[in-house]
Amino acid sequence: MAQKPSIPKGTRDFPPEVMLRREFILDTIRSVYKKYGYQPIETPAMENLSVLTGKYGDEGDRLIFKILNSGDFLKKAQHLDDAQKLAPEIAEKALRYDLTVPFARFVVMNQNEINFPFKRYQIQAVWRGDRPQKGRYREFFQCDADVVGSDSLIFEAEFISIYDEALSKLGLKDFSIRISNRKILNGYAEAVGQSEKFQDICTAIDKLDKVGESGVKKELLERELPEAAADQLLQMITFAGSNDEKLAYLEKLFEKSESGKKGIAEMREVFAFHKQMESFRGTIDFDLTLARGLTYYTGTIYEVVTNEVQMGSICGGGRYDNLTGVFGKPGLSGVGISFGVDRIYDVLMELNLFDERVMDGIQVMLINFGGESLMTSLKVLSSLRQAGISSEIYPDEAKLKKQFTYANRKNAAFTLAIGDDELSTGKYQLKDMISGEQQALSLEEILARLKE
Amino acid sequence: MAQKPSIPKGTRDFPPEVMLRREFILDTIRSVYKKYGYQPIETPAMENLSVLTGKYGDEGDRLIFKILNSGDFLKKAQHLDDAQKLAPEIAEKALRYDLTVPFARFVVMNQNEINFPFKRYQIQAVWRGDRPQKGRYREFFQCDADVVGSDSLIFEAEFISIYDEALSKLGLKDFSIRISNRKILNGYAEAVGQSEKFQDICTAIDKLDKVGESGVKKELLERELPEAAADQLLQMITFAGSNDEKLAYLEKLFEKSESGKKGIAEMREVFAFHKQMESFRGTIDFDLTLARGLTYYTGTIYEVVTNEVQMGSICGGGRYDNLTGVFGKPGLSGVGISFGVDRIYDVLMELNLFDERVMDGIQVMLINFGGESLMTSLKVLSSLRQAGISSEIYPDEAKLKKQFTYANRKNAAFTLAIGDDELSTGKYQLKDMISGEQQALSLEEILARLKE
Repeated sequence: MAQKPSIPKGTRDFPPEVMLRREFILDTIRSVYKKYGYQPIETPAMENLSVLTGKYGDEGDRLIFKILNSGDFLKKAQHLDDAQKLAPEIAEKALRYDLTVPFARFVVMNQNEINFPFKRYQIQAVWRGDRPQKGRYREFFQCDADVVGSDSLIFEAEFISIYDEALSKLGLKDFSIRISNRKILNGYAEAVGQSEKFQDICTAIDKLDKVGESGVKKELLERELPEAAADQLLQMITFAGSNDEKLAYLEKLFEKSESGKKGIAEMREVFAFHKQMESFRGTIDFDLTLARGLTYYTGTIYEVVTNEVQMGSICGGGRYDNLTGVFGKPGLSGVGISFGVDRIYDVLMELNLFDERVMDGIQVMLINFGGESLMTSLKVLSSLRQAGISSEIYPDEAKLKKQFTYANRKNAAFTLAIGDDELSTGKYQLKDMISGEQQALSLEEILARLKE
Repeated sequence: MAQKPSIPKGTRDFPPEVMLRREFILDTIRSVYKKYGYQPIETPAMENLSVLTGKYGDEGDRLIFKILNSGDFLKKAQHLDDAQKLAPEIAEKALRYDLTVPFARFVVMNQNEINFPFKRYQIQAVWRGDRPQKGRYREFFQCDADVVGSDSLIFEAEFISIYDEALSKLGLKDFSIRISNRKILNGYAEAVGQSEKFQDICTAIDKLDKVGESGVKKELLERELPEAAADQLLQMITFAGSNDEKLAYLEKLFEKSESGKKGIAEMREVFAFHKQMESFRGTIDFDLTLARGLTYYTGTIYEVVTNEVQMGSICGGGRYDNLTGVFGKPGLSGVGISFGVDRIYDVLMELNLFDERVMDGIQVMLINFGGESLMTSLKVLSSLRQAGISSEIYPDEAKLKKQFTYANRKNAAFTLAIGDDELSTGKYQLKDMISGEQQALSLEEILARLKE
């Protein structure tokens, strides 16, 4: 009996029209990464479970997809009554959960061959067992660039340009590149005399977008910050002004915070480097409320939002001081960014920014009249392809209406008809599928016209 | 304690130099597929296990990687003492084993949106729990093109051209595109009066390359073919001659075999279509010994071998009459081909065919002298990038030797030095890293030179 097929929850098929749009996004970002000197790597979909476990917190560990061992996987099983204990006994491998941990593993395993500082980009799928919901998938794509082995802040400035150039090339007109530094968050904590509450402060501030100022204050109080400190903190992070005014404002507040001063010095250096670089369409906002949830960031942090559509952040990134330490290579500093491909796709759809170029179809579809006409058509088809022109012939001598419907759905720019009349004259009917205009042309004229 | 990282057996990391070569292969094939009117799709890495089970034989079923259900996977477990029965109870999803079954599922699920005949290509990883060995991996890549919904033999002729063009563009000079038809194998069986032994005959002939004629005869006898029939069969398949001579020879033998005659007629039609098309470097060999192991082929079958290196077939393909029947949509005929990317990679490496273009590095690396020079360098760097020139700056004011070593390892075509002297003259030192030649040029002159 025939089986009604389905795909797993939270996964997607990508049909051609979606593929073409996705390729446009990825090709655009990839070409910018390459231009800035980043090189591609890929890692396997499967990692040893031990490489992934413990890197993403308890919640992350639960969401990792584990792969059942081949053959008699029960041989080594001890805990047949406890799924959590049994899992690592019957599943030694797991699916990649992000690109950062596999990259760290790659760097450690290939450290003798790598040309440091290593600028790599990586565009691959990752898998997470999250509950699927709108815009959240169990298979999705990350598009990362990182450099490891240098603490130069030139990279920080360069990443601003990469965001700016790639998003502008994708067609976005109004977006903000938000930047801050974890050391400035340290500065806040020290300035309000609560340096031991650093992580609580980060977590609370990170929720500002969702819960507002009163919500952050509530959270800070729950985390046992004195009310005076909480109020002072909120006053700091809501200071309004230009990037330079914010730096001057914080400089006074951080007089006694070494970490805060370091953060300000780093921000100034990044801005000074970036000032030498061409700007595109994005604004660069020193965002005093930026915190970023991930605990491993230690320096610069980034987040990009579009102001044209209501949507969370479309890019993120930051500097981390010890990416590879867990795999036995301490002291390598790195900084990296990531484009949220799925969200960017949704933004470009909503703004209608996938223009016709993206959806380019076939250039020419030849009509099939069968018989001798078909043989000449195949010869012409081969000549078009030799000339680099994407083209095809309808495979059967079907009714013209059917053949034209196919051509339209394939976004053919032209159709070419070689009927009996055309066989004798050597002039073929080239029809522009947009304007409807039709011309009788020789093969040479057609090639000249289409290669324009 | 730090963990010594490793990757699963049979999987690979791809560092930049390997990625660039692989991208060259995939981009070349992709561009040919596109030019012939094929459109990309992608399907998820995870499929429901039930979609895959039973499609690849018992051995295949064992080699499918299964994914442990999330959460308390033991809830539904009944057979805690039998791995084979337990697996489907605790693993509902599995990793893609090939691209053909997911494509069939895709066609059935999207049949109302698809523009038939549907010409699609798909380049994705697949996973198999085979024992890893030289040239055989647990994660490898398939690069398929198929058309479904037409029985026109124009596609058969077109696929010959696709093999021919793509492999020629990859740099191969001497390769054979072997073609035959499953109906001709039917013809053999009927001509020797053993039509019920069709599958045995296919299986035995398929081993000719490995076991030779005597081995095939032995296998046929073991499969209970009469010796006279076996001898007659061997005589047929070893007939030597041109493609036309072979067709004429078989035509006589197949006088009483409808299927054999149909096979010959199809071969003639494919050759007639292909004769209209431009040829590249490959030869087209009607191969009487070609059988192809896969049982689902019903018409044309292909195999491509290189004659420059000892290596198995580097491409395969064929026509199948009922790809989607198992998912409830019978009667769709299809034909498809596949490039063996890993083997092609090995062949091109052995023949030294990845030329310098493939390994193109960065165009310019700017030397970092720090201070004011650095600021001007960043400005120049930004101008180079604006002009589309891939470029980077060494991130620290390191020793020149270190900076040049980095540039060399990045395959930089040029280095650009802007020291104190150059700051005052506005002429920067552009050094050709191959010839060693150095010139003092203005930014405009540099841009003109590099955009040549």
